[in-house]
Amino acid sequence: MSNKPVCNMDKLYDAVAEKGHVCVGLDTAVDYVPPGERQRAASDAEAVLAFNKAIVDATIDLAACFKVQIAYYEAMGLAGLKTYAETLRYIRERNALIIADIKRGDIADTAARYARAHFEGEFEADFVTLSPYMGMDSLEPWLSYADRKGKGAFVLMRTSNTGMRDFQGLELDAAGIGHHNYRVYDAVGARLMKLAVIHSGQCGYGSFGAVTGCTGCEESLHIRERYGSLFFLIPGYGAQGGAADDAALLLRNGNGGVVNAARSILKAWTAALLKDGEVSADGGAVEEADNAFAAEAARTAALDMRNAIRAAVKSRSRKDSRA
Amino acid sequence: MSNKPVCNMDKLYDAVAEKGHVCVGLDTAVDYVPPGERQRAASDAEAVLAFNKAIVDATIDLAACFKVQIAYYEAMGLAGLKTYAETLRYIRERNALIIADIKRGDIADTAARYARAHFEGEFEADFVTLSPYMGMDSLEPWLSYADRKGKGAFVLMRTSNTGMRDFQGLELDAAGIGHHNYRVYDAVGARLMKLAVIHSGQCGYGSFGAVTGCTGCEESLHIRERYGSLFFLIPGYGAQGGAADDAALLLRNGNGGVVNAARSILKAWTAALLKDGEVSADGGAVEEADNAFAAEAARTAALDMRNAIRAAVKSRSRKDSRA
Repeated sequence: MSNKPVCNMDKLYDAVAEKGHVCVGLDTAVDYVPPGERQRAASDAEAVLAFNKAIVDATIDLAACFKVQIAYYEAMGLAGLKTYAETLRYIRERNALIIADIKRGDIADTAARYARAHFEGEFEADFVTLSPYMGMDSLEPWLSYADRKGKGAFVLMRTSNTGMRDFQGLELDAAGIGHHNYRVYDAVGARLMKLAVIHSGQCGYGSFGAVTGCTGCEESLHIRERYGSLFFLIPGYGAQGGAADDAALLLRNGNGGVVNAARSILKAWTAALLKDGEVSADGGAVEEADNAFAAEAARTAALDMRNAIRAAVKSRSRKDSRA
Repeated sequence: MSNKPVCNMDKLYDAVAEKGHVCVGLDTAVDYVPPGERQRAASDAEAVLAFNKAIVDATIDLAACFKVQIAYYEAMGLAGLKTYAETLRYIRERNALIIADIKRGDIADTAARYARAHFEGEFEADFVTLSPYMGMDSLEPWLSYADRKGKGAFVLMRTSNTGMRDFQGLELDAAGIGHHNYRVYDAVGARLMKLAVIHSGQCGYGSFGAVTGCTGCEESLHIRERYGSLFFLIPGYGAQGGAADDAALLLRNGNGGVVNAARSILKAWTAALLKDGEVSADGGAVEEADNAFAAEAARTAALDMRNAIRAAVKSRSRKDSRA
């Protein structure tokens, strides 16, 4: 063990070891809330808050962390951002780790303001997501919180959307770089690897990891190998079409990443109704579904996901030992 | 004249023709507010709101638009975001154009939520700034507002900070691209040029322009020439070290861009005190400065800036006609 102070990335590493790789995404649109609960709530924002609390309670022992996507709350205006703050507070009070999915990216004093906004005060989170387009100076104010308060971040590196090819996936000039088939996201990864030498926890991973997704793609093993010190936030599970096998390729020795799922967990209750054959022609069962039902379905979905990823990791490590 | 409907970029173009190129940046830290006003205010957030209103009133006939940097408001939590919303509303009620400097960038439903957050409701703005790292699909939900409501955006392209070199300034593989010395930001610019063919106003500029800054650099003329359909949001004036001549290189026929200044306008009152010799050893004059004094100094700074840019544009067009 190193004598470095424990940072949030260490806590996340330990949470993965203990609970598995599931990151529960609270990208909560109000239409994910059972309609009966929504009608009973004083406002959309309050309906979302009550729903979030039920999901957190039901999944807390299965979730390595919770990722809260701020866009869903910004879209509801000030009332939505109050729900965002209260959701973060609820998760924090339950001693679980929070990734604020904010994808901010700016420079100088503006970056310092953003860092203050999301690493202190009402919107304080344990981790944030950041966009690297403006350059490494855009990370500096956030890094100072890594050093002082153990905070962490996940920087957009190689995302799994089709637009990935437009900029982050472009191939760089080989002469300038020294090797072929080196892409913009490799430049981001390389800089994050350098940061990890200086800013890292006892677990061996840098305080700043990377958002890296790869649905059905061959680069994953290469990415995992090349960026060994980066803890990955892996999106695209479930409703976004990814799968446990894809995620397992980006993990390392059974750790080194969390896998996010939002809709497939939050909306599991609608699938559960269909499965139970409870959806009648008049939609009566949908009307009667409540947060308790949604939370139970979310728990089952999170559990299935955890087990599927663990099985995929096990299957991979068998393949590795045979190879 | 084309028979396209008038969009916000047309309005901005007209505002530049009428009022000049100054974009007043409301990056209002509470310590920019005169201390006396701050003490009298019920809270920091209210002090910032009153200060913003005074600045808007004093510069509205000189400002092509106002750019509000949301990071400064996020850093004050919910109260700060209320001030953000009220600042936007105040500017809108005065019929001036608003750029929400939010640099958001996400995909799919999340991007749609962000677009709703900033093109509708309490945080509605005329333009936003966006980060292109995730790819062109990250722009789609915002573009639908360009088509339906005439909204506009400025996408980060080539920024003027030192970190610019880290990713956006990297040279791309010539074989893949077909020409040399082509950088990541050129790939962004080229995609925005394509968008401008489809989504543009009567003024000939695309609804989605670019954030492009270049302090003392030779690429400006090249950038202006290559990206002729892109209206530029040019940062870096004043406190950030830029100058009118730099900005003029990125303008086109006396239009085609706005130049942002924040601190040099918002904090002009402290410079005005020094100039008047009114700063006494005990700081009494600073204590006595009020929003009216700050607003008057802001007006003078904005006027000087407008005239300096106009002079630089005139000087350049003389050079061009001689060449």
